[in-house]
Amino acid sequence: MPHAGIQEKIHRLSGTPNDLHDRDVLLTWEISDTGIRSLVRGAEILRDLHRAGLSTRVFESGLGVSIFRDQSTRTRYSFRSGCDLLGLMTEELDESTSQIVHGETVRETATMISFLTEVIGIRDDIFLGEGHRYMRDVAGSLDDSRREGVLDHRPAVINLQSDLDHPTQSVSDLCHLAEHFGGLDNLRGKKLAMTWAYSPSYGKPLSVPQGVVALMTRFGLDVALAHPRGYGLVEEPLERARTFAEASGGTFRTVESMEEAFDGADIVYPKSWAPYEVMEERTRRRRTGETSRLDELERECLMQNAKHMEWECTEEMMGRTREGRALYMHCLPADISGVSCDDGEVAASVFERHRLSTYREAAWKPFVIASMVLATRFRESASVLFECLDRGRARRPL
Amino acid sequence: MPHAGIQEKIHRLSGTPNDLHDRDVLLTWEISDTGIRSLVRGAEILRDLHRAGLSTRVFESGLGVSIFRDQSTRTRYSFRSGCDLLGLMTEELDESTSQIVHGETVRETATMISFLTEVIGIRDDIFLGEGHRYMRDVAGSLDDSRREGVLDHRPAVINLQSDLDHPTQSVSDLCHLAEHFGGLDNLRGKKLAMTWAYSPSYGKPLSVPQGVVALMTRFGLDVALAHPRGYGLVEEPLERARTFAEASGGTFRTVESMEEAFDGADIVYPKSWAPYEVMEERTRRRRTGETSRLDELERECLMQNAKHMEWECTEEMMGRTREGRALYMHCLPADISGVSCDDGEVAASVFERHRLSTYREAAWKPFVIASMVLATRFRESASVLFECLDRGRARRPL
Amino acid sequence: MPHAGIQEKIHRLSGTPNDLHDRDVLLTWEISDTGIRSLVRGAEILRDLHRAGLSTRVFESGLGVSIFRDQSTRTRYSFRSGCDLLGLMTEELDESTSQIVHGETVRETATMISFLTEVIGIRDDIFLGEGHRYMRDVAGSLDDSRREGVLDHRPAVINLQSDLDHPTQSVSDLCHLAEHFGGLDNLRGKKLAMTWAYSPSYGKPLSVPQGVVALMTRFGLDVALAHPRGYGLVEEPLERARTFAEASGGTFRTVESMEEAFDGADIVYPKSWAPYEVMEERTRRRRTGETSRLDELERECLMQNAKHMEWECTEEMMGRTREGRALYMHCLPADISGVSCDDGEVAASVFERHRLSTYREAAWKPFVIASMVLATRFRESASVLFECLDRGRARRPL
Repeated sequence: MPHAGIQEKIHRLSGTPNDLHDRDVLLTWEISDTGIRSLVRGAEILRDLHRAGLSTRVFESGLGVSIFRDQSTRTRYSFRSGCDLLGLMTEELDESTSQIVHGETVRETATMISFLTEVIGIRDDIFLGEGHRYMRDVAGSLDDSRREGVLDHRPAVINLQSDLDHPTQSVSDLCHLAEHFGGLDNLRGKKLAMTWAYSPSYGKPLSVPQGVVALMTRFGLDVALAHPRGYGLVEEPLERARTFAEASGGTFRTVESMEEAFDGADIVYPKSWAPYEVMEERTRRRRTGETSRLDELERECLMQNAKHMEWECTEEMMGRTREGRALYMHCLPADISGVSCDDGEVAASVFERHRLSTYREAAWKPFVIASMVLATRFRESASVLFECLDRGRARRPL
Repeated sequence: MPHAGIQEKIHRLSGTPNDLHDRDVLLTWEISDTGIRSLVRGAEILRDLHRAGLSTRVFESGLGVSIFRDQSTRTRYSFRSGCDLLGLMTEELDESTSQIVHGETVRETATMISFLTEVIGIRDDIFLGEGHRYMRDVAGSLDDSRREGVLDHRPAVINLQSDLDHPTQSVSDLCHLAEHFGGLDNLRGKKLAMTWAYSPSYGKPLSVPQGVVALMTRFGLDVALAHPRGYGLVEEPLERARTFAEASGGTFRTVESMEEAFDGADIVYPKSWAPYEVMEERTRRRRTGETSRLDELERECLMQNAKHMEWECTEEMMGRTREGRALYMHCLPADISGVSCDDGEVAASVFERHRLSTYREAAWKPFVIASMVLATRFRESASVLFECLDRGRARRPL
Repeated sequence: MPHAGIQEKIHRLSGTPNDLHDRDVLLTWEISDTGIRSLVRGAEILRDLHRAGLSTRVFESGLGVSIFRDQSTRTRYSFRSGCDLLGLMTEELDESTSQIVHGETVRETATMISFLTEVIGIRDDIFLGEGHRYMRDVAGSLDDSRREGVLDHRPAVINLQSDLDHPTQSVSDLCHLAEHFGGLDNLRGKKLAMTWAYSPSYGKPLSVPQGVVALMTRFGLDVALAHPRGYGLVEEPLERARTFAEASGGTFRTVESMEEAFDGADIVYPKSWAPYEVMEERTRRRRTGETSRLDELERECLMQNAKHMEWECTEEMMGRTREGRALYMHCLPADISGVSCDDGEVAASVFERHRLSTYREAAWKPFVIASMVLATRFRESASVLFECLDRGRARRPL
């Protein structure tokens, strides 16, 4: 029987209730363990169907609308291709050419872009306390409009990176780990080092490390977070990480140095982010309209970073990990010393050795986003996948 | 029998000849009464089919191209989603990244973007005497290229707002009125107040009030237009409104105050637009290349507006309408006092009470645009809709 | 039997091996004669199927990604509509809103935009020695990622204009010539004048004349290239033109004046391009970061052009061609004297007489691009076309 493996996976997916139906994907810690596992399974099945050359087009029409308030290559592509994989056309709402500047309220815009829309993806990650709130506002407005009958249906909101979490990234990372170690259950007891690293480029958001520690602690990993003084993270995901670690039998601790985090690690995730106080000040200045002073703040941020140039994932540092062979992870693009900058997050030889692995990590994202669309839009998402398998329609001629 | 209601509506649509086939939608007053009624019916049927979960994808390939020379959220989304509903991919022609600046002529561009295109949507509403002329030029060029065999077919041009008319808005407004009052025929004798209102934002186009008075007078409504001295409209649509009112048994009059227009009204449409002389001066400066002085003119416009801040749709003003319960309409976004600005077109409490109703009004636009595409592209548009109903293909899994 | 002509054409196409399968389209001179003929045939068949109202949608999902590093109207539209014709959704990678500026390497970006992508189209034509190299780098990166299993498949790269060649243009030109003269074999012995012409607009790329001489010499034409001193072209395509002319029984020579090239010509292609030294200096300044001095260089370029205003395709000049009736060609937009500029490449009366013909020339491009996609993506591209004919699915209702 062809595709027996895929059938088996869908069968397993169908065995658990889909509690993401008609909901949003804003923070992984608001999703049940079952929900997270289903997202991973859904992504695996979609990738398997794609590799088997089978069409997963399930929508005859409908839109995926994206709003990017920060730059993006990978996530933008992943959203568009993930939507296309299911048959949704995509549209990017460009706030500079829309009427939003003319006093349009969030709740109004949310409804206006939803009449024929299945999913709205939002990136808003620069200002602490703003991105997640904006997504909540959009989601709440959709609830209102659905309840009042203005909308026939309610699109799902998918967080494409906020100030709090980056679920399309962290779930892709989880898929990658599951594939690398042979299943989610094999992650138990693995040591993961989520560490700050030096970068000469802009003051990056905090959501990747926050998302990683709050998600990986749920699967029994021993997660160590390391960063220089002044580079702390938002408390909410840290608190979640502590609670999850306890519940899952894993651990979560904060250590003082990259060395300490790397010692004996199975997985390392060295990555730059902005100093917490710079993030706070950035938000403060925006609120008070001092936007002309954001560049100045950016320079301060980079100067502060420059005091910690020794936080680099070098060969020597990698040598401290388990048998010197830890899995190196990164959400990309990485700041590679001697390649994309003089001194950066990672030595060129280390990155080069793990480069293709980071590409494989990134390759999950379109499927993870498509999996999130399926889970949020269909009560019986497993049935939808079964139907794709059964009809056996080719994605393209050979 | 399922969907008997839809079948009945399509049956009625098929009973009238489609005189929009192979034509454009530039000005509603160039379309016959039958044509307007068919557009409304088409939009209703498409919405019914959508709600019934049936696919209305009728194109296997083909493009909808849009050109926006002014900002847009709603209409841009409506064009894209209306096209997608029928299976057309959309492309926006961004004049800043195209070669149009390098001396490309309108007639050339028109043909170049038409080879595989079914519909071209254009917004060009800022300069009096220019937007409509541009659309005519595009349409004329397509005629030429079709006649000469350069094009196998001729795309329809749809006005997404010009200096003269805004048919996708006014027909959506008409659909909303028909739904609210239980049918187009029930609009006879209803009193509609189309009035200017104060706004602190930019000098808005005249096409919404022009489009509303020139369309609603055709359905027997008693239309009163009110605005401060100096805020007159283009003569052509006013002349049409007078003629239409006479023919339909309705009335059309211009009054001196918002109060007078609101007295006993069933429907009110208070909305800001720029002073006529500012619109003329804007066009003059553009023609003479004084574009650096457009900002200055914008300030003058806003200062002139500020003399009429009492033109606000307040609770007191609404109290003058029939039983104090007129239907409030707006094309959105509205300038809401205390919400999107200090003083604006409408009091916050009035807008809030009617907010969802304005969203319902806006919800018609994707279906109205799709209806325009069907009517202009297919001689037997009713047959195309019957086929969608008969084949019963689901728009998406449940 | 309906569509017997189309069937016959597909039959002929199927008789030759498709050596473009799993390859790129970067330079026509790297493609075999058979390959070029197949691209022309493919475009003809796709146009015939389109005119016959038959759907050529062969992809259920998949993306065409474009990267434009220079302005474009025609090619951008052609890429999108050519992809749509086959069922691919398109996405334009906007480098200004992506993270490419943050040190992302070419090889990384190439993989990141390829996971669900069938074709990547790139325009990069401003800097000598850069555009083609960039495309090669992208192609090489895709080879790596495919070999390493990071990509399940490898998208084709299609050159949408580089510093060396402009194959979607030159193959469209070839289709136009084949149609005009009744077949590719009828081009033998025809005289083609590829000449420089004066333009007051920016310093245009060299790839159109390079592409035309390197392609047309393969089909037995007698090609004369003419330009003022200092407007030479890149050596590689010129060398190819000489070799191809010898092999095909045609000729290739460089002459000193537009007059000499036009004498007795069957086809004329008068078109502006930048002085070679300006192109070199432009590249040098970019490499040394003197980007602020690019505008200054642009002015020098236009001043140098202005010394050669007599290079204009006038009525008198056309009078020198065979019976005064040569076919006038242009890639558009042309700089038309008295229309798009005071003095330009071509007299208004000459352009007007040939205007529709240039539109027909341009009309080939969407089909040529679709033909390139079919040839590069499917080993048996003829079978794919047969299947489109056999299933007889309508592209749209009538």
